[in-house]
Order: sequence, then structure tokens, then C-alpha cells
Amino acid sequence: MIQVSVCGPREATQQDLANAREIGRLLAERGAAVICGGYSGVMNAVAEGSASAGGLVIGILSQHTKTDSNPHLTVAIPTGIGEARNAIIALAGDAVIVVGGSWGTLSELALARRRGATVVQIGGWRISDSSGKPVSGVIYADTPEDVIDRTGLFA
Amino acid sequence: MIQVSVCGPREATQQDLANAREIGRLLAERGAAVICGGYSGVMNAVAEGSASAGGLVIGILSQHTKTDSNPHLTVAIPTGIGEARNAIIALAGDAVIVVGGSWGTLSELALARRRGATVVQIGGWRISDSSGKPVSGVIYADTPEDVIDRTGLFA
Amino acid sequence: MIQVSVCGPREATQQDLANAREIGRLLAERGAAVICGGYSGVMNAVAEGSASAGGLVIGILSQHTKTDSNPHLTVAIPTGIGEARNAIIALAGDAVIVVGGSWGTLSELALARRRGATVVQIGGWRISDSSGKPVSGVIYADTPEDVIDRTGLFA
Amino acid sequence: MIQVSVCGPREATQQDLANAREIGRLLAERGAAVICGGYSGVMNAVAEGSASAGGLVIGILSQHTKTDSNPHLTVAIPTGIGEARNAIIALAGDAVIVVGGSWGTLSELALARRRGATVVQIGGWRISDSSGKPVSGVIYADTPEDVIDRTGLFA
Repeated sequence: MIQVSVCGPREATQQDLANAREIGRLLAERGAAVICGGYSGVMNAVAEGSASAGGLVIGILSQHTKTDSNPHLTVAIPTGIGEARNAIIALAGDAVIVVGGSWGTLSELALARRRGATVVQIGGWRISDSSGKPVSGVIYADTPEDVIDRTGLFA
Repeated sequence: MIQVSVCGPREATQQDLANAREIGRLLAERGAAVICGGYSGVMNAVAEGSASAGGLVIGILSQHTKTDSNPHLTVAIPTGIGEARNAIIALAGDAVIVVGGSWGTLSELALARRRGATVVQIGGWRISDSSGKPVSGVIYADTPEDVIDRTGLFA
Repeated sequence: MIQVSVCGPREATQQDLANAREIGRLLAERGAAVICGGYSGVMNAVAEGSASAGGLVIGILSQHTKTDSNPHLTVAIPTGIGEARNAIIALAGDAVIVVGGSWGTLSELALARRRGATVVQIGGWRISDSSGKPVSGVIYADTPEDVIDRTGLFA
Repeated sequence: MIQVSVCGPREATQQDLANAREIGRLLAERGAAVICGGYSGVMNAVAEGSASAGGLVIGILSQHTKTDSNPHLTVAIPTGIGEARNAIIALAGDAVIVVGGSWGTLSELALARRRGATVVQIGGWRISDSSGKPVSGVIYADTPEDVIDRTGLFA
């Protein structure tokens, strides 16, 4: 099945949370599994959205137990490898969706681009070179539907 | 849902493969997800057994792509962390089942015992101290049904 | 001893390489060990600079062997965990220095900030929120001496 | 420089500790760096032995800070990846020496053999197949000098 990683911060804006929930729902409707970090904020919202539509959600947890994982995960994978698990989230999706901004989220975005994955972002941070010119490689979308379309996975 | 890690070698005996297939089937019947390494041999057999009964199987791959993963996985997680992913397999199960023996399998068994997990083994290697006395901590079972029972997860 | 992680791209500008070499030299003079990714570009330049002044350099390699590691490392640690090793580089320094920009480098910067480390950057990329306002948390320096001073480790 | 991983339990026998200390000293005398887990017991003893002879010791820590690392390390690398760091210790040595037995130690031995490394053991656990026949692949030595000789690195 198609699997899509969805990244975003624990402390998210209401807009980010609404976007994540809708993205989760849309992915479930299209039959795609969601991979996420498994905790609160955007991770919880995308899992909740997917679960509400009967979708499959895998949480790749940083901790070595399931403590604090959100209740919407189909399967929780406690990795025990800390933030290094961000590299796994960045690898595990056929595309990577970024909702909102934080340092952890930025690391996932960067690791996804490092491997050459399609990265679609809504909200969140922007990256430019030292002259102020945007660094290319991230697709910016305006709505959850647009995010899904621009992954290129559901044509 | 209950999730059980099943470990075993790529190059397995016919008995190991038959045991793994039946263990996969029994876990699916009991509604438990299977976590495995995602490649061939015992990993393929347990996945095939689970899938044959409609079960959920997560493959935690050592490589950074899905190349060579077996076709019975519901979701394949390419970790890119090599054999360090054995530590994740050892953590991710509510219990850990070992079918057959190899160095990779032994590392998973040892890491599972390191965290204090219930480990049930069928076939495979044995561990003793330097005086030849068996090291305690692994439960040995004789049949797939016995393996499932002795995990203590389905009482 | 004080240990400082130095991150930067394989494909670096001449300015980045000169900066990295000088930073390596200055760290060695101050008795600090350098932690780096161990390959070419900025990683090679900082190692060369440190080694030229008799410094200790540890390369944390992504691959599972020492292949392609640069010749200036005192010790090369082949981790076999791929880009997840960036999380280790981000953790291992008492401060983290960033020289130049790339996706891999950005992931190290982000992981270092995720843990709250002091991050001092020269050259490279900039991060802003969606309104164009710079995200705080990274110290920008203009010269190698300034980079060293602003780590706060050698007062 | 030659680098040798030395593995062993936190809770070790007096004999294991004496052996580890002497192995550390001998490795330093031969100009080899020691890689170890960085905490107490055998890890502390081998580091102490190496440091007593002016050797270089790298501790690959499971935790994300240097807390509880032993005082004899030249450089401590906090990985934050938990027991998955055992895979790094198993990879990082040109040979792997095992002193004493524990589940964590066994995982390092198994991961070292998984990659085909030379593994020399003194004290500790034994591995046999289900018929009781020893599994080949580990070299057993009787004295610290014998351990060093049988790594084959100092001929």
C-alpha cells in the first residue's frame, strides 16, 4: 500500500492541527497508510484524522516504550533511538508531508530532501540561502487537498 | 492492538519455516500484529502466515529502501540503520518470539532480554555460562501453539 | 576534554572549506576534539585543519565500513546507521558549528537546536517562519575566530 | 590507527575486571584505540587500563548526554540511540573483544559476528545449537595476552 510520512510539531497552531487532521482523513480515504512520530500536536491530529476514516497509522516513537504515544495509532513502534528516529520517518514515506514548523520537523524535512524524497509542506518554516534566495526542493501547498495532489502519489 | 515481534534467520530449516508460518497464522487469528525484519526466510514465512489469515505485518527493514522486502508485509519501514534496527524489533513487541538461530537472530534475542521482555523460542540456539550451565531468561517451546501460549499475551 | 561538532556539506564553496580548515586549526589549538561526519568537503577540511595542529578528530561515519572516510581522522567510527548518524553528531558536541549549507547539514543544525545546543553558523542557509521573519536560535558569525568565540566554550 | 572494540557487562566478576584492565593496558601499549560502551564495570576497567598507559579511549554512550560515563574516556559520544548503539560498537572495531557475559554483551558479540568480524572472548557465555554442539565463530582465549594475540591485529 502507499505510505506517506506526515511530520509536524507537538506545539502546533490551530490551523496546523486542522490541516493535519484533514490530511490524515484524505490519506485514509485514498487507501494510504500514515507514518508519523506518534506523539501529540500534528502527530496526534493526523493520526486522529486517518483513524476517523478507518486508515492505518504507524507511529515511529523516539522513546523505548509506548508511553505518551497518541491513542489513534494502529501500531506504535517504540524505537528507543531518540531523535534519530526522525531519519526513519523521513525514509519511510513514499512522499513526506510537512505541516507547520519546529526544529524537529525541520530535521525531518531536511532528511527527506537529503534522500531526494518529494516533500510537500503546508504552513511552517522557509529556507533560503545566505543571500536570501529561497532554497529549492520543497513544494508549498495551500490546502490539504492541494497537499495530497502535489505528492504526485494519487494521480 | 497486541503486537508481537518474530525473529529468525534468512537461511532457515524447513521446520523453522513451517513453525514461523503457523505462528504468523495463529497471531493473526488472535488479532495481534506481527513485527519482523521484513526480508526472506523466517521473516517471510511469519509474514506469509499472518497475511494468509488477514493479519497486519510490519517489516522493520535494515536498508534505506524497500528493496528485497518480502511481499506479505502490510507496511514496510525502511530504516536505513542497518543491523541497529534489530534493537527496534527487540523493543517493538509486547513479547518477542524467536524461531531458529543465526547471529542476527541471537542479537535480537539478547536485546529483547536486555530490556527484560518475554522471549519465547522454538528451535535455534542455546546459551550457557562458561561452566556449561544454561543462562536463564528464555522460554523454550515445542510447538507453535505452545509458543503463542507461553508469550502470556493471550490468556 | 571539550568536544565540538562541526557540520557542513560535501560539496562546499572555497570559502566554506577555508573557514572549516581554520576552525579545525583553532579548535585544536584550544585543546578541543572535533567531531564530524568524516567524509569529504567541509568534513575533510575541518579534520585537516585540526590534524595540522595536532588535534584529535573523530569521524562519525554513516556507512558500516571506513570506506571513503577522509585521511585526517584520528578515529573513524563506522556506524552503519546512515543519515540517522546526523543525530549523533548533533548530540556529541558541547557546541555545534555549522559551515555552509546542504540538506544533510540543515538536518544536523535542526537536530542540534532540537536538543537545545548552542549552534554557531558561518555561511550557509537561513531559516524564517512563513511570514519571512527569521527563526531565532542560531548564532551567525563572520570569521572563524568569531565562530570559536561565540560557542562560549573558551572564555 | 588500529581500533579495537571491547565489550562486557556493567556487573562483572573481579576476574573480568582484571582481564579488562589488562587488555586495555596492552592495547594502549600497542598503539590501538579502544572503543567501548563508556559506562561502568568492564567498560570502566578497559578504559582505566588504556588510560593508565596513555591510550585513546572512545566511549559510545547509549544515553543522549554524558551522564554516568566513566572518567577514563578520552572522548565520550552520547548517541541517544539506546541499546542500538551496541551495533555501532560491534562495527567500530577492527576486531571485537568480549570480556564476560550479559545480555547486552551477547548482543554486541552477535552483531559483531553478524558482520563477520573477528571476535575474541575471555570468560563469559557460550553458544551452542539445539543439539548442544558449540556454534563456531568465536575465538576463546585464556589470558589478556592471548586475547590480544588472537585478534590477529598485532602480528
